[in-house]
Amino acid sequence: MNDFFVNNKKTKDISELRQDPVGRDWVVISTGRAKRPEAFKSSGTPERETPINLCPFENPKEHGNEVIKTYPLADGSGWAVQVVKNKFPIMEGQNCRAESKEGLYLVKDNAGYHEVVVFKDHRRSLAQLEVAEAGQIIKVYRERYLELSQKMCVDYILIFHNHGRPSGASISHPHSQIMALSFIPADVRRSLEGSRKYKEERGRCVHCDILEWELKEKKRIIFENKSFVAVVPYVPRFSYEVRIFPKTHQSYFENISDGETVDFAEALKISLAKIYHGLNNPAYNFFIHTPPAERDHEYDYYHWHLEINPRLNIWGGFELGTGGEVIDVDPDEAAEYLRGIKT
Amino acid sequence: MNDFFVNNKKTKDISELRQDPVGRDWVVISTGRAKRPEAFKSSGTPERETPINLCPFENPKEHGNEVIKTYPLADGSGWAVQVVKNKFPIMEGQNCRAESKEGLYLVKDNAGYHEVVVFKDHRRSLAQLEVAEAGQIIKVYRERYLELSQKMCVDYILIFHNHGRPSGASISHPHSQIMALSFIPADVRRSLEGSRKYKEERGRCVHCDILEWELKEKKRIIFENKSFVAVVPYVPRFSYEVRIFPKTHQSYFENISDGETVDFAEALKISLAKIYHGLNNPAYNFFIHTPPAERDHEYDYYHWHLEINPRLNIWGGFELGTGGEVIDVDPDEAAEYLRGIKT
Repeated sequence: MNDFFVNNKKTKDISELRQDPVGRDWVVISTGRAKRPEAFKSSGTPERETPINLCPFENPKEHGNEVIKTYPLADGSGWAVQVVKNKFPIMEGQNCRAESKEGLYLVKDNAGYHEVVVFKDHRRSLAQLEVAEAGQIIKVYRERYLELSQKMCVDYILIFHNHGRPSGASISHPHSQIMALSFIPADVRRSLEGSRKYKEERGRCVHCDILEWELKEKKRIIFENKSFVAVVPYVPRFSYEVRIFPKTHQSYFENISDGETVDFAEALKISLAKIYHGLNNPAYNFFIHTPPAERDHEYDYYHWHLEINPRLNIWGGFELGTGGEVIDVDPDEAAEYLRGIKT
Repeated sequence: MNDFFVNNKKTKDISELRQDPVGRDWVVISTGRAKRPEAFKSSGTPERETPINLCPFENPKEHGNEVIKTYPLADGSGWAVQVVKNKFPIMEGQNCRAESKEGLYLVKDNAGYHEVVVFKDHRRSLAQLEVAEAGQIIKVYRERYLELSQKMCVDYILIFHNHGRPSGASISHPHSQIMALSFIPADVRRSLEGSRKYKEERGRCVHCDILEWELKEKKRIIFENKSFVAVVPYVPRFSYEVRIFPKTHQSYFENISDGETVDFAEALKISLAKIYHGLNNPAYNFFIHTPPAERDHEYDYYHWHLEINPRLNIWGGFELGTGGEVIDVDPDEAAEYLRGIKT
């Protein structure tokens, strides 16, 4: 999915969740932003910048974006961050009670909220920001998380960022997205289940065990400070993937303290700068994996973290047929390389 | 992963499987074909054709490919299909006994076989072939499947095809790939588990139930003949996805009869031709999901099928963070559209 389209209105838009009866994953069907069949082109996705005079995020309000909150620069000279409603939301509304049956499928409304966190500068990505500026963005994530988690129908809140066209970012002006979903996504569910089982079987947090080993081995750590560590995982999902973990067992992103936001921002900014300089400004995505916002269940066994996925390879039939990428760079070498990149 | 690279030799290549301790998925680490960090460019992947005079598949043997078997044209005037060893195999070797421990991770050799099924014509993709020609390719798939399944270390055989650069096909000359793997891939494992659970709970095959409903509804069927049906799933994983199923319960692809290969080839060729003409020759992948080749377990509950995934959208942070694509075209409309495309 690209994150912004021209909205070609169709006769009947669908916005619902449908459950796959095999894997029991919920799938989002949201046709409001779809291109018509005849609009499809097979022409790749050239790297290009959104012209600044056409950029909808230079002045979000003037371009018809509904501003939720504006955060000022430290010196009061203007805005630093703005949170806006996504003009073409993937999920919307507060109807999450009714589940219906269609054949053997469960179907429900695609309720939720879809917000955009717009950074001030058209050309300065997170890799170029000062740690204090990145820290402000982390605090915005936390504030939006806490507010959205109080709303109806919000089972899971996904905070993510697309950088570069091959990552799905169709507007180059730096921005993150926050989606408050009325379901728990498949990959999150599996990560939760795996962590819960490991805890049940061994009495420990799987991510704490991983970190203890990585901190002893040291080989795959690219950066650490007092409270966070950035590591190329021994078993990554992407070549040059970097994951950032709180060093001590912390289950919930939104409980991050003010002091920790600075450490987290530093680890994120430096990791992205190493990727930017070391890999020639590649496209990447990052997202935060944290437990569901719904708290009918207890998720203290989980250990929140952020994953940065550089988009260096194309997924082909192997990846789609198996569910994973072939890791073509030794994680030890990837880490050694990134560790050596000056930022 | 792209399927062919210039092989930049590095100091130490790794080819192993590592198990993710959270989800217990096996991940392939295969660095032999990797590009060096400094070789990474952020420059997308332009659509382009491999020049015919440089094409390694025009005459595979002359280009140093080890030919496993050559299949002649019906009139004996030359070759129609050649199966060759992949020059830069992702998996290789027959050492699948020893599992070792590295920290909290299980590690084993990336044993297996990686073959390429080369079609004769540089510019005629499966969508352009005659049904008889496509049928010959299906029979080659079956023959290779049966032979590879007898070899050591082969737990799963994945047959897949990449069409167009954004699908991962870096050589445009039409070819499929067959990977004989010494592990069961994550997505296959989940599809097996889901099917087994459904069978346990309801006493029926989940795919038979899906097909019964689709054949009654008729809305999402784009093509059917005596033994196969091509359908846009009510819950797809990709916009314009098409799945092809045997109409009766059949668990194992390799048991397809000669007569059925013709029906299957027709359903595949016509589905691909509808996608080719209807969606402006987009990139796509297809792969066959069939039970593991290892038969220590019984998989009669499974229902083999082929999935065609057009690559119309870019996966961004939402997809990578949740594990699924936003379906932006109503499956009913997608099916109605493809059904109407003349081939």
